[in-house]
Amino acid sequence: MILERIHSSADVKKLSEDELVPLCEEIRQELVKTVSQTGGHLAPNLGVVELSVALHRVYDTASDRLVFDVGHQSYVHKMLTGRREQMASLRRYHGLAGYPKPTEADDDAFIAGHASNSIAVALGMARARTLSHDNYQVAAVIGDGALTGGLAYEGLCNAAASGEPMVIILNDNAMSINKNVGGVNSLLQRLRIRPGYIRFKRWYRDTFKNVSTVYQFNHAIKESLKSWLLPDNIFSEMGLSYLGPVDGHDVRTLETVLRWARDTGETVLVHVLTTKGKGYAYAEQRPDIFHGIGQFDPKTGEVFSQETGFSDAFGKALCEYAAKDEKLVAITAAMTLGTGLKDYAKAYPDRFFDVGIAEGAATAIAGGMARQGLLPVFAVYSSFLQRGYDMLLHDISLMGLHVVFAVDRSGLVGADGETHNGVFDVNYLSSVPGMTIYCPASFRELSDMLGEALYHETGPVAVRYPRGGEGEYLASDCGAEQVVCEGTDLTVVCYGTLINEVLPAVRSLEERGISAEILKLGKLKPNPFTLTLQSLRKTGRLLVVEEVCAAGCVGEQLLAQAEQSRLALKGARLLNLGSGIVAHGAIGELWHEYHLDREGIAMAACELVLGGREA
Amino acid sequence: MILERIHSSADVKKLSEDELVPLCEEIRQELVKTVSQTGGHLAPNLGVVELSVALHRVYDTASDRLVFDVGHQSYVHKMLTGRREQMASLRRYHGLAGYPKPTEADDDAFIAGHASNSIAVALGMARARTLSHDNYQVAAVIGDGALTGGLAYEGLCNAAASGEPMVIILNDNAMSINKNVGGVNSLLQRLRIRPGYIRFKRWYRDTFKNVSTVYQFNHAIKESLKSWLLPDNIFSEMGLSYLGPVDGHDVRTLETVLRWARDTGETVLVHVLTTKGKGYAYAEQRPDIFHGIGQFDPKTGEVFSQETGFSDAFGKALCEYAAKDEKLVAITAAMTLGTGLKDYAKAYPDRFFDVGIAEGAATAIAGGMARQGLLPVFAVYSSFLQRGYDMLLHDISLMGLHVVFAVDRSGLVGADGETHNGVFDVNYLSSVPGMTIYCPASFRELSDMLGEALYHETGPVAVRYPRGGEGEYLASDCGAEQVVCEGTDLTVVCYGTLINEVLPAVRSLEERGISAEILKLGKLKPNPFTLTLQSLRKTGRLLVVEEVCAAGCVGEQLLAQAEQSRLALKGARLLNLGSGIVAHGAIGELWHEYHLDREGIAMAACELVLGGREA
Repeated sequence: MILERIHSSADVKKLSEDELVPLCEEIRQELVKTVSQTGGHLAPNLGVVELSVALHRVYDTASDRLVFDVGHQSYVHKMLTGRREQMASLRRYHGLAGYPKPTEADDDAFIAGHASNSIAVALGMARARTLSHDNYQVAAVIGDGALTGGLAYEGLCNAAASGEPMVIILNDNAMSINKNVGGVNSLLQRLRIRPGYIRFKRWYRDTFKNVSTVYQFNHAIKESLKSWLLPDNIFSEMGLSYLGPVDGHDVRTLETVLRWARDTGETVLVHVLTTKGKGYAYAEQRPDIFHGIGQFDPKTGEVFSQETGFSDAFGKALCEYAAKDEKLVAITAAMTLGTGLKDYAKAYPDRFFDVGIAEGAATAIAGGMARQGLLPVFAVYSSFLQRGYDMLLHDISLMGLHVVFAVDRSGLVGADGETHNGVFDVNYLSSVPGMTIYCPASFRELSDMLGEALYHETGPVAVRYPRGGEGEYLASDCGAEQVVCEGTDLTVVCYGTLINEVLPAVRSLEERGISAEILKLGKLKPNPFTLTLQSLRKTGRLLVVEEVCAAGCVGEQLLAQAEQSRLALKGARLLNLGSGIVAHGAIGELWHEYHLDREGIAMAACELVLGGREA
Repeated sequence: MILERIHSSADVKKLSEDELVPLCEEIRQELVKTVSQTGGHLAPNLGVVELSVALHRVYDTASDRLVFDVGHQSYVHKMLTGRREQMASLRRYHGLAGYPKPTEADDDAFIAGHASNSIAVALGMARARTLSHDNYQVAAVIGDGALTGGLAYEGLCNAAASGEPMVIILNDNAMSINKNVGGVNSLLQRLRIRPGYIRFKRWYRDTFKNVSTVYQFNHAIKESLKSWLLPDNIFSEMGLSYLGPVDGHDVRTLETVLRWARDTGETVLVHVLTTKGKGYAYAEQRPDIFHGIGQFDPKTGEVFSQETGFSDAFGKALCEYAAKDEKLVAITAAMTLGTGLKDYAKAYPDRFFDVGIAEGAATAIAGGMARQGLLPVFAVYSSFLQRGYDMLLHDISLMGLHVVFAVDRSGLVGADGETHNGVFDVNYLSSVPGMTIYCPASFRELSDMLGEALYHETGPVAVRYPRGGEGEYLASDCGAEQVVCEGTDLTVVCYGTLINEVLPAVRSLEERGISAEILKLGKLKPNPFTLTLQSLRKTGRLLVVEEVCAAGCVGEQLLAQAEQSRLALKGARLLNLGSGIVAHGAIGELWHEYHLDREGIAMAACELVLGGREA
C-alpha cells in the first residue's frame, strides 16, 4: 500500500509519477471507509484527492503555508501529513478535528471553519514572509462557494494589488453546499467552458524546458505571452495572473500547473475544476446529501436515519405560517438544507432567497425588505450570524425594523467544534437595541415562539434553538419566565433544551432531600426576571445553567439584578462554558466537561445547598 | 433664487432645463456657506450636486426608494426635499442628521453611515416592490470607495442574479476618504478612460425619439445594441447592464442616462465620474481635508484649528514604537487620516497597509501576519470594527494570535451620531476569548498602554480611546484598577476620559460633605476587581459611570461579582447609555442627557448616599 509510506509532503514528493494515480485510489477508498464510520464531510474531500496530492508534490506544508478555506476539505491533507492513523478519531472528543487546526500539526497553517477568509489570511502571511525576508511559499485553497462571500472579494482585491508572490487555488466544483447563486457564479460558468488553455501551457513548457532561463524570461515576453495564453476575466482585470481552468482530477497536469504558478513569483489564481464526491458513485449523484453526513453504509450508500431536529421543526413551522401570509419571505446564506428550508424552498420558490455565503448581505437585504413591508425570516447558524453583527445594528436595529432571525445551531454543535459552536449569540444579540430573544425548548415551543416573533413582536426578533432534537420537555410556554416545578432550597434557572438535563437533576436532588425550584426562561430579552427574583426571595440560592460563554450570560444579568434588588443571596453558582474555547466532541461529553449534564447540575446544586461553598 | 422654490422632487421636475445649471450653482454656494459654519462632509456633497439634481428630475424620492451608501453625500438631497431651512442645524443636537434618516423625511429611504450596504438594501426593497406588486422605482447611490467593501460585492452579485429592475449609480470620484486601493480600483481606472460612450447613446436617442415604442423595442435588438454600446467589464460579466462612464457634472446628460437606465426595467449599473469638492477650489485641491471638516473660513479655505486628539496621540506613539521594532506593522481600513496614521504611513510605507473599506479582511490579514511572526496593529473606529466581529473570534481569538486593535472613536462621537457611536465595543470585545481590553484616559496613558499591549500582553488586545482630546487627568497608570482618590461614603467606578467628569463631580460632592472614592479602571478585561470590591466593602455604595450601552457593561459585571462575593450593598446605581439608541449632538449635551456629565454624576451620587433611593 502506497499510503502507508506517506507521513509528510516530503514522502509524497518521493513517489514516482506512476504511483500517483494508485495513491489517489487508495485515499478515496480509505476516505469512504473512515467517514462512513465517523461521519463528516465526504463529498468535498473526494473532490480534492488529486488536488491535495498535487499540492503536497509542489509545497512542503510543514514550512510553506497552505491555507484552506472553510477547511472541511482538509481530510486528505491530514491523511498525508502524519495523521492517517488517527482518522478513526475524526471529529470525536479529544480526537482529530474536522477542520485544519494548527495545534494538531505544523502542516495546518491556519484555523478554518467559517468561509471566505483564506485569501486575506494568506495575503497576511505573504506580507509577513516578504517583510521578514523569509522564502517560504504561500497558497490558499478556496471553493467557488466561498467566493460568494464578501470577505473573499476583499481578500482578492488586496491580493491583486499587493504584487505578493502567492497562489490562490480556486477549487471550482460548481456548487458550494447548496447550488451556487449570484453574479460571480454566472461568471465562473463562462470561464469553465473555455477551451483547453492547458494545452498551450504544455506546449510552452515542452518548448522551453531545456532553456535554463525558462522562468526568468523577461517581463515584456511574459506580458505578451500572458495576453495570449490567459483569458481576460474578472481575475485578470483585478490584476491577478489567471491560469485555468485545469482538470482537477488529472493529478499530473495539476502538479505541473501548480508548480508553474508557484514559480512565477506573482499573485496567481489557478482555476481548478473538480467534481464533488468524485469516485464514489453515491456521493457524485447526491453531493448535497454527502456533503456533510452522519454514518452510512459504504456499500449501498444508505445513510443511517437521523432523528428529526429543531431545523426540521423550524422548516415545518415556517411553511405553515407562510401558507397563511404572502408577506412572509425566507432568506438563507447557502444553507437551505442545514437550516431546514428545503420544503419551504420547494413550496414557496418566489418567497425564498439564497444569497450565497453572505450573511452580511442577507441581513441588509432583510432590512430593505422589512422597510418596504415584507416580513423576512433569515435562517442562519448562530456562529455565522456573527458575520452580520454590524448589519444587525446598522441596517436593522437603528430603524427598529421587524426582521425575524431564526438562529439555528445555538449552543454547542458537537463534532464540528469550536468554529461552529453558537455560544456567543446571547451576548451579541443582547447588545442590539430593541432586540427580542426567544429560546424554545421543544418543537412545539419553537413553532409557537416563531408565531410570537412573527406576529406579536416588533423590531428585530431572534428565535434561537440548538442543533439536534427535543427531549423530555415537550410542552410550550411563550412567556418570559415559567415555574416548571416548585421548590424551597434553591432556584435553578435555565433555558432551551438544557431543561432536559435540569429535570432529571432536580429529581435526583429530591431523592437526596433537596427541593429545587425550576425557572425556565422562554425569553432572554427583554425579561424583567419578576418570577425569578420572587423565587430567589424564597430560596435564597441561585444556580444558573447555560450553554453559552460566560461574558454577558443570563446568570451575570440575574446576579446584577439581584444585587440591585438588594437581594442578599446565601449562595450562587453560574454553570456555563466559561471564557475559553470549547473544542469538538459529542455534546454529552462536552456537557459533562462543563458540568452542564444532569450529574454536574445536581452536584453543583448539592454543593450550593449543603454548604462548604461560600457563594 | 431658484432654490427657494424647491421643496420636493416634484419641484425639481417643474424647472426648465435652463434653470438646472444655475440651480446647481446656488446649491454649491449654500453648501459651502452652511458647512463652513456647521462643519460636516463638504467635498463629497460638492461632488454630487448635479447628480442629486438629476436624480430628483428622474425619481420622486417620497415614493421611489433612493438608497444612499455611507450617506454623508445626502446634504444636497436634504436641501432639495424640504429641509433646506434647517441646514443650519445640521449635525447639531436635535437638529438635522448628517446622514439619511427616515424619521426626518419619507425621502430618506434608509439609514446610512456605514459603507457598502446600499446595493443589498436596495435589492431587498426591489424584491419587496415586485412581490407586493407595487410599481415604485429603486436606486442605490454608491461611491467607488464603498465598492471596496465585501458587502457591496455580495449585494452586486445578488442584484446581478436577481433580474430585479433597479439602478445602481456608481459615484466614481477615484477616491474614497483616502485614495482608493485594491484590485477593483485598478479595474475602475481602466473603465474611466473609455471613449465617449455617451455620444452613441445620444445618437441613439435622437434617432429613435419620435418612435413611440422607443423603450419597448424587442429583446433581441436590445441585446445586440448593448453588446455594441456597452463595454465588456466586471459588471456586465456579472450580469448587470452597464452604462458609462458619464460626466457627473453634466446635469442634462446625467438626467438622460438615469432616465434611460430607470426605464430599461433591468438591473443597471450607471457609472458616473465626479470630482470630489467640485466647484470650490480649496476643496478640489485638498479633497481629503475637506472630506469631513470642522468650521472653516469659506473665503480663504482656512480651516479653524482643531485640538490634538487621541488619534494623533496614537499615531505619534505608534511611530515611536515602530522606530524600534521592524516587526510592527499598521493596518487601516481606508481611514489613514481619521485614525492618526498619516505620519506613520509616510515614515514606514513598507509597514503600512490600507486595505480599503474592508474591516473583515483587515482583521483576517492581521491574523495571517501575526501567525507568521509580525506584530500587527489594526487602527479602526469602534463602530466599524463591528464588521470584523466574526473575524475577531474566528481568525484571531481561536488561535490566540497577538494582534493589537487600536479602537478609535470608542464611546460617543458627537455630530456623526448613531451610526458612528462606539458604544457596543465593551460588550462585543468582552465576549472574545482571550481578549484584553485597555482603556486609557490621557495621551500618556494611551502611549503606555499601547506599549503594554504590544510588548507585555499575549493574544488579542484592544486599546480603546475616544474621539477628542484629554482633560484634567494627565497621569498614566496601566494597572487594572487605580484608586484615584480615597473616600468613605461611596465608590465611583469609571474608565477612560469620563474621569474628567468624575473628578469635578467628586469635588462638588466633597463640598456637600459627601466623601467619594474614585476607582479608575485601566483594564476592562481581564480584571479581578480586587481593589474595587475592597472599596465597596468600605463604602457599601456603588456608582458606575460608563459611556457604553447597558448590555454587558462593566457595572453589570461588577454588580454580579459583588453578589457572588456576598457583598450586600446599601445602594448601587449604573450610569450608562441604556439600551436604546443615542442620537447626534455635542458630546457634552449627550452626556448631560444621560447624566454622565459632572452634574449628573454628582446628583446620582447624592441620591445614592442621602437616601430616598433604595438601591
